Amino acid sequence: MIEINARRYWQTIERSAEIGIGRPGGLARVALSDADREMRDQFVAWCRDAGCSVAVDRVGSIFARRRGRDDSLPPVVIGSHLDTQVNGGRYDGIVGVLAGLEVLRTLNDANVQTRRPIEVVDWTNEEGARFSPPMVAAGAFAGVYGVDWVLDRRDDDGKRLGDELRRIGYAGSAAVGGRPLDAYFELHIEQGPLLDAKRIDVGVVTHGYTAHGFIVEVKGETAHAGPWPMDKRKNALVGAAMLAVAAHEIGWKYHPSEGKGTAARLVAWPNKPGILSDWAQFTGDLRHEDPRQADEMLAEFRVAMSEAAKRANVSMEMIQQWTWNAELFDKQCIALVRDTARRLGYASLDLPSQAGHDAYHVARVAPTAMIFSPCKDGITHNNNEHADLERTVPAANVLANVVLERANR
Amino acid sequence: MIEINARRYWQTIERSAEIGIGRPGGLARVALSDADREMRDQFVAWCRDAGCSVAVDRVGSIFARRRGRDDSLPPVVIGSHLDTQVNGGRYDGIVGVLAGLEVLRTLNDANVQTRRPIEVVDWTNEEGARFSPPMVAAGAFAGVYGVDWVLDRRDDDGKRLGDELRRIGYAGSAAVGGRPLDAYFELHIEQGPLLDAKRIDVGVVTHGYTAHGFIVEVKGETAHAGPWPMDKRKNALVGAAMLAVAAHEIGWKYHPSEGKGTAARLVAWPNKPGILSDWAQFTGDLRHEDPRQADEMLAEFRVAMSEAAKRANVSMEMIQQWTWNAELFDKQCIALVRDTARRLGYASLDLPSQAGHDAYHVARVAPTAMIFSPCKDGITHNNNEHADLERTVPAANVLANVVLERANR
Repeated sequence: MIEINARRYWQTIERSAEIGIGRPGGLARVALSDADREMRDQFVAWCRDAGCSVAVDRVGSIFARRRGRDDSLPPVVIGSHLDTQVNGGRYDGIVGVLAGLEVLRTLNDANVQTRRPIEVVDWTNEEGARFSPPMVAAGAFAGVYGVDWVLDRRDDDGKRLGDELRRIGYAGSAAVGGRPLDAYFELHIEQGPLLDAKRIDVGVVTHGYTAHGFIVEVKGETAHAGPWPMDKRKNALVGAAMLAVAAHEIGWKYHPSEGKGTAARLVAWPNKPGILSDWAQFTGDLRHEDPRQADEMLAEFRVAMSEAAKRANVSMEMIQQWTWNAELFDKQCIALVRDTARRLGYASLDLPSQAGHDAYHVARVAPTAMIFSPCKDGITHNNNEHADLERTVPAANVLANVVLERANR
Repeated sequence: MIEINARRYWQTIERSAEIGIGRPGGLARVALSDADREMRDQFVAWCRDAGCSVAVDRVGSIFARRRGRDDSLPPVVIGSHLDTQVNGGRYDGIVGVLAGLEVLRTLNDANVQTRRPIEVVDWTNEEGARFSPPMVAAGAFAGVYGVDWVLDRRDDDGKRLGDELRRIGYAGSAAVGGRPLDAYFELHIEQGPLLDAKRIDVGVVTHGYTAHGFIVEVKGETAHAGPWPMDKRKNALVGAAMLAVAAHEIGWKYHPSEGKGTAARLVAWPNKPGILSDWAQFTGDLRHEDPRQADEMLAEFRVAMSEAAKRANVSMEMIQQWTWNAELFDKQCIALVRDTARRLGYASLDLPSQAGHDAYHVARVAPTAMIFSPCKDGITHNNNEHADLERTVPAANVLANVVLERANR
C-alpha cells in the first residue's frame, strides 16, 4: 500500500486558495475567468513538473498524463474540477483534482511505473455558475452534449464559452472523449453532513441522486404598473416567480424522503419599477434518490408550469433540460474503493451523492466510482465550507491505492 | 382664446422620437443616459430660442422661464418629464413638456405678455426606470425627499444619481423648491383606455389613485442546491418570489374595484444554477382609487411578507417605501380645466389618474391640476404606445388657455 505526502497535498490546496479569492475564507473562481486561467496555469505547471504530458481538449478540459509501461492501454483517470461557485469554498472539486496530482507525485517518489497510464483531469465548467448546464465538459466527454453546442453556451453577459476558452488560452485541440478509459475515480468532499457527524473517514459512493434541471423561458408583455388592469396583465416576472415558489414547494412535498426542489435563478426584462416585464427566465432543479420519484417531481413541476402560465397569463417553454443520475456506477470499482478503505484501516460508509458530479457523466463511458471525504457540517457552496487536512487524507490514500491497483491490472 | 400651432407642436414630438430609440416605435431614454442628455440639450435650445431663461436645479430638473409683466409674482408652471422607460413610448411625459414649450411659443406668436411669469419644467427621473423611487425630483421639489438623499440614489450598476447628473452636465445650482408657485398644470396621455374608447377630447383629472410602492430586502444563506435539506434552506430568491406572487394576487383580490398589484422587479445574488441565493430584493406596488383600500392592500402585503419570511426561512425588511396620491388636486384649477374645455367646445370627462405623476408631489406645494389626452387602447410603457396629433391638440389648447388665464390673474 502506498501513502500520499499529506503536507505536500495540502500545500497545493492552500496555493489554490490564493487564486480567485471571494468572500472571507471562500473562492469566486468561476469557469474561464482570469482566476480560472491562473489556477489552470498553476495546475499545468505542477503536472509538467511531475513529468506528465498535458493535453487540452476542445471544450477546455485539461488531461495530465503519466505514462504506463504499456502506454497503449486505456488509462485509469482521476478527475474533478478547479472552478467554483461565485460564493464557493476552497475544497469543492479542488481536493479531487489535486488529490489526483498528489497520487502522481507519490508514484514518482516511490519510483513506481504502472502498467497502464494514469491521467488526471480538470473538467471545464463543472459548477455551471457561469455557463449552463453544469458538468458540461464531462457531459461532452461522455457524448451527452455535442462539442459545438457546448462551445456555444453563453454566460449572463452573452459571452460564448468557446470564445472565453480562447481568451484564456485553453481552447485545446484534443478530441473530446471517444476513447476508452480503464476506469474513472473522483474524490470529492461529501457536501453533506454524514461523514462529519459520524466521524467516518471515507464515503463509498454507491449511487447518485437523480436530478432534473431546467430553464423555463416566460414571455409576456410590457405595460404600465399603474392603470393596466389585472385581467390584461402578462407579467413574465410573475410567471417566473410562480415557478420559483413551485420548485421550492415541490421540494418540501418530497422532503420526508429527502427530495429537494431548488429555485436557482430568476432573471426578467425590463425588471424595473413602473413597468411589467415581458420576458423572464427561471432556472431550477428537482432531486430525489429514487429516480421514479424524481420523475414524479418533474411531472408535478410541469403541471405547476401550466397552472402558472394560465394564472400569470403568459407563455412558458422549457428551453433547456438536463438530467443526471449515477445508477451506472461500477460495482467492481465501488467494491474496490470499499475494500481498499478497509485494508487501509479506515472507517467507511456507503452513501449516495446528492450533488451532481462529473463522474455521473463519465460513468456512461467508463467504469466509475467516487470517494467522499468529510466536510464540516456539510456546508458547501458557501465561503464557510471547511475541510481538515487529516480528515481528507484517508480518502486521498484510498484513491492512491485504488488507482494503483487498477493501473496495474 | 388662443390656439396652439399643432404642426409645430407635433414636430417637437417627432424630433424627440429620434432621441433614445428603443424597440420599433418606442423609446429607451432612461434618466441621465446619453440620450436623456441629448433630449435635454434639445429642449434647452428650443426654450432659449423661445426667449426663455433656463435654470437647472440641484436635482437636475430644468425650468424654462418666460418673464411676466410683474416678474416678481409666483409663476404659473407647466411640467412633465422627458425620460422614458426602457421599453417606453414616444408620448408618455413628452407630450406634456413639449405642450408647455408650445404654449410659450404660441404666446410669443401672439405677442402676449402675461402678468405672471410662466415656467415649463422637465422633471428628472420621473419614471424611476433607472433610479428608485419614481418622480423623485418632483418629490424633492415638494419637500417629500431631501436633496442629498435624491443625489445619493443609485442605479443597478451602483452609479449615483448625483454623479450621473454631473456626467451629463445637468447638476444645476438652483435651489430645489422652496418658492411659491401660482399654480401647476400637467398635460399627460391618459395611460388608460377611457378617452380613446369613448372618443372624448380631454380628460379632467379629479384625483389620483393612491399607490404604495416599496423595496423589500431579503436575506438568507448560500448553500448547495443538491444536498442541503429543505428544512435548512434560506433561499432569498424563494422569499422574493413569494413576494412577487403575493403582490400580484393582492392585485387580483382587489381587481373587482380596479385595484392593482404589481411585481415590478426582482434581483437576487448569486442567482446562479447550483447554489441558493443569500440576498434578494423585490420592488412592487399596490394601487387603489380608495386610499383606505390601498392601505388595506399594503397591510395584506405586510402579512404576506411575514408569512413568506417564515416559509422561506429568510429575513425580510422593507428598506424603501413611497406613497403618493392626488387627493390634494386643487378644486379651482380642476374647474378651470373643465370650464376651459367646455368653452373651447371639447367633450371632456372627469376621471382619476391611475398612474403616478410629478403633479401628485407638486400638489403638496401648489394649486395643481392635470389634463389628459387620449392614447390608443390605453397602451403605455410599451413601444406600441400611440397618440394622434389631432386627438392631442385639444388637451394642449386647454392647457394654453388655462395657463393664459391663470397667468393673467
